[in-house]
Amino acid sequence: MLGRRIMLVKEKLSNWLMKEQENAIHFLQKTVQEASTTGNETGVQKLIAQKLEEMGLEVDMWYPDGEELAKHPNFCASRKDFSTSPNVVGIWRGKGNGRSLVLNGHVDVVPEGDLNQWNDHPYSGKIIDGKLYGRGSTDMKGGNLSLLLAIQALKETGVKLEGDLYFHSVIEEESGGAGTLAAVLRGYKADAAIIPEPTNMKIFPAQQGSMWFRLTVKGKAAHGGTRYEGVSAIEKAVVVLDAIKQLETIRNDRVSDPLYKAIPIPVPINVGKISGGNWPSSVPDTVEIEGRIGVAPNETLEEVKNELQEHLSKVSDPWLEEHKISVEWFGAQWLPGLIETEHPLMNMLSKNFEDVMGHQPIIEASPWGTDGGLLSHVGDTPSIVFGPGVTSVAHYPNEYIEISKIMEAAEIIALTIYDWCGGENG
Amino acid sequence: MLGRRIMLVKEKLSNWLMKEQENAIHFLQKTVQEASTTGNETGVQKLIAQKLEEMGLEVDMWYPDGEELAKHPNFCASRKDFSTSPNVVGIWRGKGNGRSLVLNGHVDVVPEGDLNQWNDHPYSGKIIDGKLYGRGSTDMKGGNLSLLLAIQALKETGVKLEGDLYFHSVIEEESGGAGTLAAVLRGYKADAAIIPEPTNMKIFPAQQGSMWFRLTVKGKAAHGGTRYEGVSAIEKAVVVLDAIKQLETIRNDRVSDPLYKAIPIPVPINVGKISGGNWPSSVPDTVEIEGRIGVAPNETLEEVKNELQEHLSKVSDPWLEEHKISVEWFGAQWLPGLIETEHPLMNMLSKNFEDVMGHQPIIEASPWGTDGGLLSHVGDTPSIVFGPGVTSVAHYPNEYIEISKIMEAAEIIALTIYDWCGGENG
Repeated sequence: MLGRRIMLVKEKLSNWLMKEQENAIHFLQKTVQEASTTGNETGVQKLIAQKLEEMGLEVDMWYPDGEELAKHPNFCASRKDFSTSPNVVGIWRGKGNGRSLVLNGHVDVVPEGDLNQWNDHPYSGKIIDGKLYGRGSTDMKGGNLSLLLAIQALKETGVKLEGDLYFHSVIEEESGGAGTLAAVLRGYKADAAIIPEPTNMKIFPAQQGSMWFRLTVKGKAAHGGTRYEGVSAIEKAVVVLDAIKQLETIRNDRVSDPLYKAIPIPVPINVGKISGGNWPSSVPDTVEIEGRIGVAPNETLEEVKNELQEHLSKVSDPWLEEHKISVEWFGAQWLPGLIETEHPLMNMLSKNFEDVMGHQPIIEASPWGTDGGLLSHVGDTPSIVFGPGVTSVAHYPNEYIEISKIMEAAEIIALTIYDWCGGENG
Repeated sequence: MLGRRIMLVKEKLSNWLMKEQENAIHFLQKTVQEASTTGNETGVQKLIAQKLEEMGLEVDMWYPDGEELAKHPNFCASRKDFSTSPNVVGIWRGKGNGRSLVLNGHVDVVPEGDLNQWNDHPYSGKIIDGKLYGRGSTDMKGGNLSLLLAIQALKETGVKLEGDLYFHSVIEEESGGAGTLAAVLRGYKADAAIIPEPTNMKIFPAQQGSMWFRLTVKGKAAHGGTRYEGVSAIEKAVVVLDAIKQLETIRNDRVSDPLYKAIPIPVPINVGKISGGNWPSSVPDTVEIEGRIGVAPNETLEEVKNELQEHLSKVSDPWLEEHKISVEWFGAQWLPGLIETEHPLMNMLSKNFEDVMGHQPIIEASPWGTDGGLLSHVGDTPSIVFGPGVTSVAHYPNEYIEISKIMEAAEIIALTIYDWCGGENG
């Protein structure tokens, strides 16, 4: 009996989505055309808020108080002024008997980078061969559209929910998560969450956290013609790079979670930047190295900081023993996230994936952090990351998203909301 | 008979110098106080020209024609406009029967760098404990003063010369030697030259040349969390640094000249600068390395360029074989210089050194290039580098020169002019 009822729901949702696709993609174009880089999120958030209102949700739009937010130990941002960066939450109150769910997506986008590398205007929203192009399309306005479509499909097909549903449209994910932190501290938590970051339709129950570090390596200046009178900070930096590689091996040898089976380096340490010396014919006396260290889901940020610092303090090099490598933690950091692979929401999402896609989902650990870390650790809301975008084009020129995947993700998520919150087909 | 006559000359010169010291040091203060960085050499050159005139020399002061100069294959400068940078040459015509001599010193100074690292104003000319402080004091206005004092001592003690004497007060040594090139092309060449660069009273018959190179190493960008999907240009730069070290060993194993016996690395390759990547959590796709390669006195610049390029093209690394390291030659370059160790001027200078100092001079190869390379190769004027300054404070904050050494060098040089050009004590 239930089987048939759900079959009916699936069919209704699927049909509705098919009809809605054109409108929906038009809406996505409008949101991509809003260049919502840091500090410029008002336009897109107003579009979202309006959409949520039209859908009949209760809407809360507010400008986070940076001074207040900064008091929280997990606050991490390069600014405290959010006066042009509103958060939006849409609330669909259930009848009170079901599990609650957060659907979380960020609207901030990373800068467009070198314009010459884009084939078109970076905020064109142009559609070519079933792909919608533009900065933020895959990361993650396309994913956000899947969420909105899922909610709208349920609403429009007359579903009533038992549990509460919160749609987070947040700022600041790319810079440390202050938007989600603000939403959680305002009370928008739930029994679980789905975040449609670009996973290429993979399901990520575990998310790698990460932190940025800056190392300063000292040398001793001298004239290049008598370089043996100095100590090259570049040569010493090579010793440090070696030590970092060694630590990466040690840390990854420890990872035994089967979720990481297919991943060559579960928690990489990436050296992203190096700079040192200021004159070709002088021995360089300082090198700065900046990088990102991955944090495993079962680790705390503190543990990882200590491990890196300890490891570097023990580098076996007479010069570096006397001239300690300085370690700074700066910029953004992302908490890792973890939901049990046998969590009911995982099972529902997997099953619905199979129903819609006709094959089993790939279940893995994410190679990057998301706001799921904050939702889990601060908001007590275990989170799954699953979305229609593709990581490989995120943050790159000619970013795009496949429209068909947005629609598929929307259907999978709609069915999962129905299962999780408890739906009644009116 | 001759012995006694020279004894008398030495005594006269020595006495005259002792009496002149105070005036001379006052003049040095004035030249140091002229902050003669690139483009700002007029003030100091006017002082020098006036001094030469007072001493009774013929003075030629002119502004080199950069456009004309740039046609010469050994022109190397970052500018062609010398309209605020005059060259000065003082000419003391001999009676025509002796060997001619160039005395060459540059007036340009390197920038003062970080002012906070100076204990005093960088152009103070202040005297503390027998040392005169200021940018340019050791490199090489103190050495220039030794030259001026040597000439003046000979003049004032009534010496007449057989051969011609040319005093070069040149610009642009620190930036590639356009000043000396201009002097040589204007005809101010001689049978030999002395250049009082800061050798700490060592005699350098051989001078290391040098060139600057810039290497670009390519990688492949990726997200730091999946760094295994990219190729780190920083990791590849480490391979390149290794290859550079290997080449340095190969090149230095070849050097057998006994002049280099005491020098740990006769012709070093110095990596002075590295920079790459632009985001901590991205795999860096480009690294730039800048450095200086020493050129042995028996090498040409072309040979050395080819050797570096060839060596780097053969680095055994699959990625670098497909993504070739790019090599550029940029900035300044200095020709190496060499005079036979048994050259008569070498013998005279050594003997006079011993007479004045009471011990044998140290004879070595210089670890850096001087205008002696241009004098030898373009002006056919073999050059010895010998001066009172100290390399270790050149280009550094709190640069200074010991006054006593200026006076000793002046006496040694005066005697050597007398011997070389042929003097007659009036």
